[in-house]
Amino acid sequence: MKSPSAQPAKGTRDVLPDLLRKRRHAEGVIRRVYEAHGFEPLETPALERLDALSGKYGEEGDQLMFKVLLRGQPLVRGIRAAAEHLQEPAAVVQGRSGETAPGAPALLADLGLRYDLTVPLARAYAAHRAELPSVFKRYQIQPVWRADTPGRGRYREFRQCDVDVVGSRSPLVEAEVATAAVECLEALGFRRFELRVNHRGLLRAIVECAGCPNEREVEAIVALDKLDKIGAEGVRRELAARSLPGDAAEKLVELVTAAPDLAAVESFVQSHEKGREAVGELRRVLELCGGTLAESRLAFDVSLARGLGYYTGCIFEMSSPDFSGSLGGGGRYDDLIGTFLGRSVPACGFALGFERLVLLMEEFELFPPGLSGAEVSLAAAETGSEAALLELGRKLRSTGLGVATHPEPQKFGKLRKSAAERGARFAVWLEGGRLSYWQRDLDRIERDVTVESLIALVAASGS
Amino acid sequence: MKSPSAQPAKGTRDVLPDLLRKRRHAEGVIRRVYEAHGFEPLETPALERLDALSGKYGEEGDQLMFKVLLRGQPLVRGIRAAAEHLQEPAAVVQGRSGETAPGAPALLADLGLRYDLTVPLARAYAAHRAELPSVFKRYQIQPVWRADTPGRGRYREFRQCDVDVVGSRSPLVEAEVATAAVECLEALGFRRFELRVNHRGLLRAIVECAGCPNEREVEAIVALDKLDKIGAEGVRRELAARSLPGDAAEKLVELVTAAPDLAAVESFVQSHEKGREAVGELRRVLELCGGTLAESRLAFDVSLARGLGYYTGCIFEMSSPDFSGSLGGGGRYDDLIGTFLGRSVPACGFALGFERLVLLMEEFELFPPGLSGAEVSLAAAETGSEAALLELGRKLRSTGLGVATHPEPQKFGKLRKSAAERGARFAVWLEGGRLSYWQRDLDRIERDVTVESLIALVAASGS
Repeated sequence: MKSPSAQPAKGTRDVLPDLLRKRRHAEGVIRRVYEAHGFEPLETPALERLDALSGKYGEEGDQLMFKVLLRGQPLVRGIRAAAEHLQEPAAVVQGRSGETAPGAPALLADLGLRYDLTVPLARAYAAHRAELPSVFKRYQIQPVWRADTPGRGRYREFRQCDVDVVGSRSPLVEAEVATAAVECLEALGFRRFELRVNHRGLLRAIVECAGCPNEREVEAIVALDKLDKIGAEGVRRELAARSLPGDAAEKLVELVTAAPDLAAVESFVQSHEKGREAVGELRRVLELCGGTLAESRLAFDVSLARGLGYYTGCIFEMSSPDFSGSLGGGGRYDDLIGTFLGRSVPACGFALGFERLVLLMEEFELFPPGLSGAEVSLAAAETGSEAALLELGRKLRSTGLGVATHPEPQKFGKLRKSAAERGARFAVWLEGGRLSYWQRDLDRIERDVTVESLIALVAASGS
Repeated sequence: MKSPSAQPAKGTRDVLPDLLRKRRHAEGVIRRVYEAHGFEPLETPALERLDALSGKYGEEGDQLMFKVLLRGQPLVRGIRAAAEHLQEPAAVVQGRSGETAPGAPALLADLGLRYDLTVPLARAYAAHRAELPSVFKRYQIQPVWRADTPGRGRYREFRQCDVDVVGSRSPLVEAEVATAAVECLEALGFRRFELRVNHRGLLRAIVECAGCPNEREVEAIVALDKLDKIGAEGVRRELAARSLPGDAAEKLVELVTAAPDLAAVESFVQSHEKGREAVGELRRVLELCGGTLAESRLAFDVSLARGLGYYTGCIFEMSSPDFSGSLGGGGRYDDLIGTFLGRSVPACGFALGFERLVLLMEEFELFPPGLSGAEVSLAAAETGSEAALLELGRKLRSTGLGVATHPEPQKFGKLRKSAAERGARFAVWLEGGRLSYWQRDLDRIERDVTVESLIALVAASGS
């Protein structure tokens, strides 16, 4: 029989020990920062009911979500229903890659894989309302799945890293969420980055004050958001293509390309009550960040829009001159968490781009040394020394260091080489009852040593 | 619009902060033990190609595996193929709960959710053969998914915790795997447990020596395995129902109910070459465990069979008088890992029952105190103190303790109560610029203290 392919599924990967230790280091740093700020850990299941997920992520989300096939009797019924559905004239549509049937998955699947960590938070908050504090500060670091086209640093299974405060409208929340995110990047070792800030209400006010009608608001904001990608000329073209009335387009381009400070924008929206309110909220958050680690990283950016999604107030985006995409982002979203409760629940959060951060940390060598496996590599020259190896391993471990005992005989040279490659500090070798070791830091070999002197040496090196 | 249900999908659960901290404690203890023994961490994707998973877990596995629906154009083709398939007379079969179509999922799904950690290890070992050491010692703690009927402690998403050594036939491997598993339980705080040991080759030899024909071997071993559940009479009935020739059944029941030691079993299989070899292997492993933590826990049990699965040599099972099921098990399986390489690769491993261990640790209160959130709860009596709160939070955090700042105003009594409930050691309260605190350990309230004296107190308590 032909062996099946050993490659992981498209867009997924195996995380081998060296990379996994790095990822755990990064995750540990982020956890410690968030826990120091009083955020509590939450985990939700990978599988969610499809009815809880559907309609939450727009059409793209419905397409990219991995859905789980029905089982048993419901599957037989589902296949019959889906086949009948395909008979309907409008059921099968011509997509880029051929025919698709957008209505079919709902007939054949009952569960979906977690697509983000925000909808699960909303669901879990509603389900456990009575057990959770009235203001719930949680962080969550778990994988999510999207059937996206894989690319560099873009996987179909990737880790998200979210922090959110549910249940408070206080600007203290924005300030703490922003500060904690900045602290995470500092603690991970990043030096060049900034946290741009804007306000969804302010963006709406700007567009209205420029003379853009309500129904064009979203398109205009989408165009402005592209300033750093396509430049002022590009934004001008985008707006022109949407034929905004009068000089609205020109006013908007002028405003955003001037990179105005908050005071200038305030005078632009002077006549707009909600715009003035938004400026007040932004100013309050910036003030509260004064004196925190975030202060020197924060920059008001009137062109920042963070897609359009569900944000209702302040919005943030973490960026670095060393990386073209965003390193994280967030903001206030007061209308989403209540979905499962049937009432509005205020919330504000921040998501770090875990996969990108790990990629950049590798590139800039931000991982500390010593993220390796066992400190001691132990082997014997011949079979028959198993009992002695186990005994020696036990004694060496009692010093507090990790000991990798090789079950197969090894030559000393090969043992030293593999120990060096794997970052071990000692290679210890048994041959005919004689004990030798190699110490990495001194690149020294000692032969015929006693067990006691070896243990003493290893113990001293561990402290 | 009606709010969708907030309950997690059937058989899954949200892990709230208190439980998650306990689970992480348990996982951390296990990791440290395995890393001290030189096992290296591995993670594999949740999604595996269906062709890599199918046929590996028997018929039950194929039924219980969560499969992921095709997407886009392949889905349209899949629905048509599945509908056509249902027309075939034998495609739809009558199951316990109605009609099922066992052949249909393969037409509608391309991926499956990880069902265990052993097949993914085999696949990843084959895929990364060149990057991994010739003897690969790995541990892996990740969730797996099975569409089983949920029950107490039985979930559809649950964590497995595997340790395996791939690439060596040395009995040192069995000894180290057994020792590390025993160390895990000791480190978690378990006191009453034992590790029963047997050998698949010995079981086969016993059954053959009793006069049972080859083709009945599996059934006879399945019956023997039930000794601790159904007793000697039950086993006798089971064997009788299988009408073993002559006095084979009686010989087997006599042997296992006598709970013989290894020497007695050795003389029973004296005429059987592979049986004598198996006894030799078992004896070697027991000898090697002498002097290790596992020594006093190990007990030879001739009735232990560990299902029948893929084991080829020594088998282990961890059990406790405080729990009716197994707490973990493992053994040598030399024929599975090579599936993806097309050649035999020896392997031996052990899997701890993570969910059961956590359940028992809760029941026996084995979790250490202090697995709580931030040590300091901080709030103000009124809005307007946000800047002061953030500043105070920053100073308190600089002592190394975690600080949960409440964004909404709180009464001091309520703050103390929630701090006590959440395991915080201090509740700190700001009112009109005056600072008060409650210290849990002394149950003492001090009012009108200076920031400096508070910081000094908190800092001293942390050391």
